[in-house]
Amino acid sequence: MTTGTVYGLGLGPGAADLMSVRADRLLRAATHVAYFRKAGRAGQARQIVQGLIPEGAVEFPMEYPVTTEIPLDDPRYNQIMSAFYADCTAHLQALAQGGADVVVLCEGDPFFYGSFMHLYTRLNGVVPVEIVPGITGMSAAWTASGAPITWGDDILTVLPGTLPEDTLVEGITGADALVVMKMGRHLPKLRRALDRAGRLAEAWLVEYAAMPNQRVTRLTEYAGETAPYFSILLLHGRGRRP
Amino acid sequence: MTTGTVYGLGLGPGAADLMSVRADRLLRAATHVAYFRKAGRAGQARQIVQGLIPEGAVEFPMEYPVTTEIPLDDPRYNQIMSAFYADCTAHLQALAQGGADVVVLCEGDPFFYGSFMHLYTRLNGVVPVEIVPGITGMSAAWTASGAPITWGDDILTVLPGTLPEDTLVEGITGADALVVMKMGRHLPKLRRALDRAGRLAEAWLVEYAAMPNQRVTRLTEYAGETAPYFSILLLHGRGRRP
Ligand SMILES: C[S@@+](CC[C@H](N)C(=O)[O-])C[C@H]1O[C@@H](n2cnc3c(N)ncnc32)[C@H](O)[C@@H]1O
Ligand SMILES: C[S@@+](CC[C@H](N)C(=O)[O-])C[C@H]1O[C@@H](n2cnc3c(N)ncnc32)[C@H](O)[C@@H]1O
Repeated sequence: MTTGTVYGLGLGPGAADLMSVRADRLLRAATHVAYFRKAGRAGQARQIVQGLIPEGAVEFPMEYPVTTEIPLDDPRYNQIMSAFYADCTAHLQALAQGGADVVVLCEGDPFFYGSFMHLYTRLNGVVPVEIVPGITGMSAAWTASGAPITWGDDILTVLPGTLPEDTLVEGITGADALVVMKMGRHLPKLRRALDRAGRLAEAWLVEYAAMPNQRVTRLTEYAGETAPYFSILLLHGRGRRP
Repeated sequence: MTTGTVYGLGLGPGAADLMSVRADRLLRAATHVAYFRKAGRAGQARQIVQGLIPEGAVEFPMEYPVTTEIPLDDPRYNQIMSAFYADCTAHLQALAQGGADVVVLCEGDPFFYGSFMHLYTRLNGVVPVEIVPGITGMSAAWTASGAPITWGDDILTVLPGTLPEDTLVEGITGADALVVMKMGRHLPKLRRALDRAGRLAEAWLVEYAAMPNQRVTRLTEYAGETAPYFSILLLHGRGRRP
């Protein structure tokens, strides 16, 4: 018996037809399909492939034990997450060692702030693991905004909105083009940072890029105090262009 | 007669099956296919779709009049390129106004340092233009490197290797994870900048990511004085991870 392969399958940002031909082919032949989700939720990766998982494939939802309930800097957070990832790893490893290929659904690109990375580092070298890259959420966001993100010599900086305000200001100041991920409830802090960096008026907020409820709003006209989890903030580069 | 649409078709980084299902479908139905290339070269975007363009489709190669022969800061460079883009635009516009859909092949993601952006800004509002995002070269590069690029709160900075050495040092210093694009003959300067920022030993060089001649090398073991055009330099983030 040959050991199976665990595939970290980049599904792209939302629309099923933004998945790669390779991901589509692997998915349609899958016998085991795993994905992360919050308890009681469908899970974004699982939603993207709705209707595409073959009849009879075995699904393995991996439910996060905590997400925002415990602060990230609480040592219990690391302990709980670490045990959770170890459990998921053990299950995927057992499937692969039993000869099955397993497809792990990943929103966007698996190696770009993805959850699968935590399983990848644990599985790599133990069973065969392969990554299929995907279109990122930020590519869908700047596409939705209707304007190119980087020109010529532009520097692009990607900042997680979870960073402290001063770090955000510094990052914005050094950037030509900017992407802010994971902003959600950090939006008020981000507004202040953009204002301090003198770039508030240029900012665009893209909610649910490439998803049915996609919405592009100038930040200065955005009514929400916070933003949904699937939101990205953009400042477009203005670099060299003939 | 309805006006046709010009599609900026993101093809992904190299392997044909890393194109999106949407791009694949549009390509297989195409009647007009345009792409940039250097005189006397096949053109990378055109090479990706080798064997996939339908029989009978009309091809429109757009040949760069200059690329590296005239320095970027010479005013003639801007004049020549600007006239070239205007010509391409006129041709695509005429096709669309004649009722044809036109597919413009774009390596990677069209809005990320792409050439099509120069046509997009000229065509937008004149005829219908649609962008299909794609997997970027950098996603293929970090996938090839076998390690995730960004974790938790990591800041990712993307620097064009064409920037001055001091700007590179500053950019590297502010970044957790780093991507350098367009480095080619700027590699010696980039090596110095990485050394000054104390991160030379961590750097990986990925040539031809997701292409047949893909190669991943630690920069300190890379023999070349310069790198090929299709090369990306990476520093992986080491952020928060349970
Ligand atoms: C854990 S990261 C995952 C990123 C993903 N692996 C990618 O390649 O885009 C989650 C964050 O990505 C961003 N994001 C991903 N996809 C998105 C989309 N389609 N629309 C808006 N934001 C998105 C949001 O900022 C969200 O908080
Ligand atoms: C004009 S930019 C185009 C970027 C493209 N639109 C993208 O989304 O990746 C050209 C630069 O992209 C990088 N690049 C793009 N695709 C690549 C690949 N498959 N392998 C290595 N480098 C690549 C190289 O640094 C190259 O100099």
